[in-house]
Formats: sequence, C-alpha cells, structure tokens
Amino acid sequence: MRRKSFAEMACPIARTLDIVGEWWTLLIVRDALIGARRFDDFRQCGIADNILSARLDLLMREGILERRAYQEHPPRYEYLLTEKGHDLLPVVVALGMWGLKWTDGPGRAPRFLHTVCNAEVSPTFACPSCGEHVQPGEIRLERRTAEAACAAGSQPSAQVTA
Amino acid sequence: MRRKSFAEMACPIARTLDIVGEWWTLLIVRDALIGARRFDDFRQCGIADNILSARLDLLMREGILERRAYQEHPPRYEYLLTEKGHDLLPVVVALGMWGLKWTDGPGRAPRFLHTVCNAEVSPTFACPSCGEHVQPGEIRLERRTAEAACAAGSQPSAQVTA
Repeated sequence: MRRKSFAEMACPIARTLDIVGEWWTLLIVRDALIGARRFDDFRQCGIADNILSARLDLLMREGILERRAYQEHPPRYEYLLTEKGHDLLPVVVALGMWGLKWTDGPGRAPRFLHTVCNAEVSPTFACPSCGEHVQPGEIRLERRTAEAACAAGSQPSAQVTA
Repeated sequence: MRRKSFAEMACPIARTLDIVGEWWTLLIVRDALIGARRFDDFRQCGIADNILSARLDLLMREGILERRAYQEHPPRYEYLLTEKGHDLLPVVVALGMWGLKWTDGPGRAPRFLHTVCNAEVSPTFACPSCGEHVQPGEIRLERRTAEAACAAGSQPSAQVTA
C-alpha cells in the first residue's frame, strides 16, 4: 500500500521526507557518509537485497547518489554521494545526537571532523545578536508568512506554514 | 506488513529512526514545534484521523508528547512537547534546510528564534580549532571506535560503526 506523497506539500520539511523518509533510506545515506561505497558495504546493516536495490535506485534517481563503475568484467559499481547527498549530513548528525541523548543501546555517534583542520566539530545554532551558541531548548519556531498555510495552530498566531 | 525494527541496532541514528521514522511522525513534531496542540490542529496537513491517533499515541508512549486536558465536559485534550520532544528541533530544522535548497515547491522554512533575545538563529557546525562556523561540505564522518560495527566500508579504515 502506497503511503500518501508529501512531494506536493507547501513545506520543505515534508518534501524532504518524501525523498528520504522511506524506511532504510537515511541509514544508507549514513553509511555512505562514513565511507560505504559498494553494494556489499551497504548490506552489512541487515537490509534485504531487494530493498537495498530499490533504495539505491531511488537515491540515484533523486541525485543523492551517483554510480561509478570500478570493474568492467564483470561490471561492478560503487555508489558515491553527490553534493546534494552530502548535504544530508546535518540531518544524519541531528538524528544521531538525539539518539545518543534519548535512546538506550550500544554504539556511539561517529566523529564529525573539519576537513580543513581535522578538529572535531559539533552541531549548534548560532545567534548573531547575543551569544555564540544556542541550545535547542532556547529556540522557538515561528511561521514566516501567512501564505501557504500547512496546518493551523490552536491560536491564529501559531499557524504552521513551514 | 511490519518493517524491520531498528530499535536494537548499535547505532543511535537507527534507534532514533525507529521512534520517529514512521511516515507522518516528524510532520506532527514539526507542527507541535510551531504551535499546534489540539487534534484539529494536527489534522490540517491531510493526515487521516486513524493514523493521527496512532501517531499521537506512539509519541506519548515514547515520551515525546504529553497529553493535558483543557476541557472536562466533554473531555478534550491537547498535546504538548516534552523536553525529549523539543530536542527533535535540530532534526526538523535540518530537514527543512535541505528541502529549501534541494526541492522545488512553495513554502518557506519557519524562523528559528532565540527565546532570550528574539534574534533569528541559524544551524551551523562550530569548529573549536580554526574557525567559527563550518559548512556541511567541509565535514567528514569518521567512526569513533572499532566496536559495534554496523556496516563495513569498502576500505577497512572506512568501516561504519555509527
């Protein structure tokens, strides 16, 4: 059963989920960000081959991965992140940070290293006015305009337009 | 058909997706972040009532939303984000930023305002060594330890342990 598409929604968050919200997709992107390239690399996490094939095709169709031959006889391909694909890094990092704080289990988040100087960077929010870094708990979301309302809040001033 | 659970995976990214990766869930969190509280607020985006009920139950069970009565006769409830729920803000923001850059369509991301000074903050990565803010394209992910390997990269040095 096909779930409802978010592709036409007036919200960039929904449209992103339409592309990367399928089960497994962001785990494939995660593995690609850490260095997985070949089919056998990606299947180590337990994904079924047919689902992995479908997800790799989807990610290529969306321009998130591109395929490159690394062997001719027999033909073998590896899958590389495009700029569009690498730009999903903040999504993967945000999911990992939340999971580290709020879920129990083994595993650690990967290190996020600045390619220029090799120092470990950390996700944050920058406030141009009063301080350097702001915690998520100190941030509130506010609709930008009244157009393209997507969901209405309980008060008119809290309508969702994202 | 139930999809494979990520709950036991040795990766905080996978465990997060096990909780918030269901279709619609993050859109409900998005709306809650912008001010939606009541059942009728959340259904404005086009989600079917039975799915919305199931997702609200899931989010309460996971401690992401909590329910509060706002009327007694007949009983009516509103749904509020907990600290655990509000901590999903960086995930929602990261999805929105990617969608603004890489998808076509109407809608704008909401404004992210510092509650202390009301200035608009922006998501970024901070480098403690060489600079203030680092773009995603300047970051590489690296496994932290060899334990709890989740997927193997094509080279040993690129194994995925997140």
